[in-house]
Amino acid sequence: MQVRPITIANRPARVPLVCAPLVGRTREKLLAEVAVVAAKQPDLLEWRVDFFNGIGDTPQVLHVLAELKQAAGGIPILFTRRCRREGGEQISLSESKVVELYRAVCASRCVELVDFEMDNDAAHVSAVREMSRAAGVQLVLSFHDFQSTPSVDELEQRFEQAQSLGADVAKIAVMPRSMFDVLTLLDATAQASEKLSIPVVSMAMGARGAVTRACGWAFGSAMTFAVGEGASAPGQLPIEDVRAVVEILRKAR
Amino acid sequence: MQVRPITIANRPARVPLVCAPLVGRTREKLLAEVAVVAAKQPDLLEWRVDFFNGIGDTPQVLHVLAELKQAAGGIPILFTRRCRREGGEQISLSESKVVELYRAVCASRCVELVDFEMDNDAAHVSAVREMSRAAGVQLVLSFHDFQSTPSVDELEQRFEQAQSLGADVAKIAVMPRSMFDVLTLLDATAQASEKLSIPVVSMAMGARGAVTRACGWAFGSAMTFAVGEGASAPGQLPIEDVRAVVEILRKAR
Repeated sequence: MQVRPITIANRPARVPLVCAPLVGRTREKLLAEVAVVAAKQPDLLEWRVDFFNGIGDTPQVLHVLAELKQAAGGIPILFTRRCRREGGEQISLSESKVVELYRAVCASRCVELVDFEMDNDAAHVSAVREMSRAAGVQLVLSFHDFQSTPSVDELEQRFEQAQSLGADVAKIAVMPRSMFDVLTLLDATAQASEKLSIPVVSMAMGARGAVTRACGWAFGSAMTFAVGEGASAPGQLPIEDVRAVVEILRKAR
Repeated sequence: MQVRPITIANRPARVPLVCAPLVGRTREKLLAEVAVVAAKQPDLLEWRVDFFNGIGDTPQVLHVLAELKQAAGGIPILFTRRCRREGGEQISLSESKVVELYRAVCASRCVELVDFEMDNDAAHVSAVREMSRAAGVQLVLSFHDFQSTPSVDELEQRFEQAQSLGADVAKIAVMPRSMFDVLTLLDATAQASEKLSIPVVSMAMGARGAVTRACGWAFGSAMTFAVGEGASAPGQLPIEDVRAVVEILRKAR
């Protein structure tokens, strides 16, 4: 199984890309966090801006983003406002204001990728697709189920939905209630990675799903999220642990 | 998912049990091998006696076995003649003579487990079941497919066949031709580990299956085979690599 790599700066990135979230609530905490996390050399940093207290103040977001980019020392940045419905933090912004925030961020040239939920208002998805393409920013269209794991067919439809909406990367995260749900997620990922023309990313969350965060790439997932300092979702492993497992399995393959 | 542990010396062993094969062809090579392998502290040593040049000479087998037991320093021993049909070495013994060899080995009290193929002559399977039970030796009934991966239903039937033949442990090894075959093996293992009343052991061989050797326990497999000095089947990882992955995933769970 050949895993389709994510494109960063016009080049295929390595597989799996190890992405570490930044979840600080203030500028000070974020700057302290990025120093610790960047030192662990993840392949990508995800700023989960829904955790940031200043999300309602676009100039402040852009200022902190520029500082994060500086501190990242060349590690590319994925910008994500995770919506409340799919496991993100409560924020005060309206969805229209979120789209305007994405527009400013894309135009800033400080980020290589943005993540937006595929189930958001169709006009907003379309707007984010256009503004990211215009700025040369890769678009991840995502779907998260924090309660359960949809069927293989439903998951495959989700991957296809992301592609048909114009995503550069299709991402799905589910909550497994058994190890059979973990197998369902891996099965859908392997199918999608053969059928789609864009890279796919997937993970089963929580303790049961931990195996997918370390081994999902063997079943077609191009990226995994790992903890630098703080986790953004349940079941994330430390960066160094993910790297150790990937290295061991790669050697064996 | 609770994994049913294998019983060794009347106690539940840890999960996954890490078993290292001994594949030397001569007494001298076996004694050198066991010294290296036992120092890596696997949970179990498997003597693959079909590799041994002296297999036709029962007193010699028993003598070497006693030396291996001594050198193992308390690490329990699994005794296995893998038949040619299921991936073992060519030997000169008739199947009846193999059964007599198993009888002598069980009676020697030098081994804690023996492995015999479930597809062998029914009278031989029955004889090995009786002699091992009489000697307090655990019986692994095994099935290997070095060409392909049967369906989930067929694999489940194999696990059930082992249990109905009186096995203490049911073991299946398959060759995956795709990552979907790897998922098939894990699915059948998870199903069997819920349905059967005995521990199950499984692995997908080769490069594609390497992930099952490190992570199969999360899907119900009670034992994995890992390399001390020499591999006995394709795709086996070094003992220390298996232990590292198990430790990382256990921490995450």
